[in-house]
Amino acid sequence: MRIVAASEFELKREVEYGSPEQNEAVRKIITAVRAEGDEALLKLTQDFDRVSLNRGQLRVTQEELQAAYGQVEPSFLSAIRQAADNIRVFHQKQKRNSWMDLQPDGSLLGQVVRPLKRVGVYVPGGKAAYPSSVLMNVIPAQVAGVPEIVMVTPPATGGKEGINPYTLVAAAEAGVTEIYRVGGAQAVAALAYGTESIAPVDKICGPGNIYVALAKREVYGDVDIDSIAGPSEIVVLADDSANAAYVAADLLSQAEHDEMASAILITSSASLAEAAAAEVDRQLANLPRQEIAAASIQNYGAIIVVDSVAEGIGLVNRLAPEHLEIMVQEPMAVVGMIENAGAIFLGPYSSEPVGDYFAGPNHIIPTNGTARFSSPVDVDDFIKKSSLIYYSKEALLQNGSTIMELARHEGLEGHARAIQVRLEQEGTLEGDQS
Amino acid sequence: MRIVAASEFELKREVEYGSPEQNEAVRKIITAVRAEGDEALLKLTQDFDRVSLNRGQLRVTQEELQAAYGQVEPSFLSAIRQAADNIRVFHQKQKRNSWMDLQPDGSLLGQVVRPLKRVGVYVPGGKAAYPSSVLMNVIPAQVAGVPEIVMVTPPATGGKEGINPYTLVAAAEAGVTEIYRVGGAQAVAALAYGTESIAPVDKICGPGNIYVALAKREVYGDVDIDSIAGPSEIVVLADDSANAAYVAADLLSQAEHDEMASAILITSSASLAEAAAAEVDRQLANLPRQEIAAASIQNYGAIIVVDSVAEGIGLVNRLAPEHLEIMVQEPMAVVGMIENAGAIFLGPYSSEPVGDYFAGPNHIIPTNGTARFSSPVDVDDFIKKSSLIYYSKEALLQNGSTIMELARHEGLEGHARAIQVRLEQEGTLEGDQS
Repeated sequence: MRIVAASEFELKREVEYGSPEQNEAVRKIITAVRAEGDEALLKLTQDFDRVSLNRGQLRVTQEELQAAYGQVEPSFLSAIRQAADNIRVFHQKQKRNSWMDLQPDGSLLGQVVRPLKRVGVYVPGGKAAYPSSVLMNVIPAQVAGVPEIVMVTPPATGGKEGINPYTLVAAAEAGVTEIYRVGGAQAVAALAYGTESIAPVDKICGPGNIYVALAKREVYGDVDIDSIAGPSEIVVLADDSANAAYVAADLLSQAEHDEMASAILITSSASLAEAAAAEVDRQLANLPRQEIAAASIQNYGAIIVVDSVAEGIGLVNRLAPEHLEIMVQEPMAVVGMIENAGAIFLGPYSSEPVGDYFAGPNHIIPTNGTARFSSPVDVDDFIKKSSLIYYSKEALLQNGSTIMELARHEGLEGHARAIQVRLEQEGTLEGDQS
Repeated sequence: MRIVAASEFELKREVEYGSPEQNEAVRKIITAVRAEGDEALLKLTQDFDRVSLNRGQLRVTQEELQAAYGQVEPSFLSAIRQAADNIRVFHQKQKRNSWMDLQPDGSLLGQVVRPLKRVGVYVPGGKAAYPSSVLMNVIPAQVAGVPEIVMVTPPATGGKEGINPYTLVAAAEAGVTEIYRVGGAQAVAALAYGTESIAPVDKICGPGNIYVALAKREVYGDVDIDSIAGPSEIVVLADDSANAAYVAADLLSQAEHDEMASAILITSSASLAEAAAAEVDRQLANLPRQEIAAASIQNYGAIIVVDSVAEGIGLVNRLAPEHLEIMVQEPMAVVGMIENAGAIFLGPYSSEPVGDYFAGPNHIIPTNGTARFSSPVDVDDFIKKSSLIYYSKEALLQNGSTIMELARHEGLEGHARAIQVRLEQEGTLEGDQS
């Protein structure tokens, strides 16, 4: 693994926007689903997934869900339940109440917090199933109080007809209320605009291929979407107290995700840099996903030696990584200086997979430096707020003329008159009828 | 004003995406500013605003700010200060603390809440100045704790060189820390990417013309942006207890904003429908912005008679209006049934301008039906959250094998090994070195 100077380093960021042909294909699919509903869904499923369904087969039945439970190991079920519990406990602490502020003049100001009514979660149907991703998308919505959580996923998994049973079990455990076997841009269109079988949702989330991402961008505005994630990233900030084998294993756990994933060690210790580089090579040698991890390390990985932990912190704040591990003598003394990082893992035992699977915080975290201004998925992503204004007669009489003055300064006489007509009728303002 | 049946009514929604030429022009401006910095800003300001500036004149000085205070009426200053106080008090109630959850096994999970570091607010330079809009964009950022709040605004107001003094005073009162005289897409580019004189920001908000909106969309991802607002909307839900003159005045206060604004009365009372329609015509007759309001009422306005307040509520929830006024006998008994509305005004004295200018809740509210899934601007728009995970050795030893099981079910052996290497070295797991 290459060791570079901080001054030479620049994080490569690549975001895929899709080709004009891909965008055009997605628009056509959306138009077809809007026009023809279920019929288009079934035809597109035949075309893209090579699976023949009739309308009655779109929705996964309770019996199929029960059957999935029979197909997974008890130890998996127990593990996913523990993880779901932890995720639920963490996200419950994010919940907020509606609040009100009662004024002595009889007025009431407030903020009403309500869950979205219906949310759609896309789950890809690739060779590997990612039940953890189902939990991380669904549980925040469920904790927020969303009454209808709909999952869509392709009817075939890795070319084989059927939905992965681990995915189905995770969905049921997380609190999904409906599951449809439809994938791709057509599934996104169905969630956005509805068909005879699938009612439209208020928000679509979950990962997917380029067609799914383009479809989400296309329907945005008509429904809400989550942000479209870039390749995953880890930065490890370490001093000479860090264990090189732990550091290397954590870098590789990120690198194995994707050839475009990025794994970076920033360290004030030249000897740790050398040791970690050697450990990465050693551990890579017998990693099952060796090719992917090696390509990621080669193209997007780096070990950066800095003069001090403080210099390293500056670099971290510029990178704003998705995941940050801090393996220095006193990690708690550093965390207050971190301005930009999506999730922060402290100390030698907080390996990133602890957060990916189990601890409770969400594993859907801003990538591509967007931790500067955005946040991990949480309960707030599934609520909406409304302002509440009840002005008493006394409050209006007291403040009406000030409000009118402000309106007139903006040249909005109609605004002033909406107040004036009340002051006149309530008898505290003389003047013409407006 | 036309009275229509609920079944015949569909709200027209129009969103401007810009022509290909406008998009191309905006991209060129952004490219120029990224390449040439201040020099491009000064040249584009000369071209578009017909104002010659040198680099030293870009930033508004303290002396100019002081001079602006001398140009506004004391009553305006007092009014804007009262409004700013109310807005600050309301938004302070939205603030959230970082929190942590200490576990008995020595672990700590938490969520760090931090303000964005630097925010840019665009203020248009049209004929009318909207100091209230400055307050509504700036104060939530200031309450969130954003240390650097930058305002940009064109160097000429309605063709006359100089920035409107009401805007400058509102900016100073709201807590803006830097002001630059630059507008249009070039100002957005400067905020997004920085120039020699203007440091880049993390988020850009505030209204603007189509070029400003397109530029914001173009830079989104490199920085955060607020949502791009559609035309303003009001729905008044009223029964026969409502005062027709109040209803009409409130409809017109919305209609005078913009020819595309929409003002809709939904009422269970046929007599109120008739009376309000007549009042609208009467009040329109001597409204200064009569032409605009009449066009809005003509094209986007409607009075809808429903069979019951309950039917009206159903229609409101489908429309998801930006502003909702509820003028029925017992408005508090209705508010719990409102699922979708950006801001809710209750009773006869809560005229929309109360909220537009003064009461405290934000007046930047989701339009175009997006109140189904989004919220008025608030403190949350100017913070970011990071997850915090500190796992103790005990917690890792306790849960390590469960985490490994979940990772292996997803085919991510590298994730499992990041845990395994620790369990091995800490002596609780036998097996090969990985």
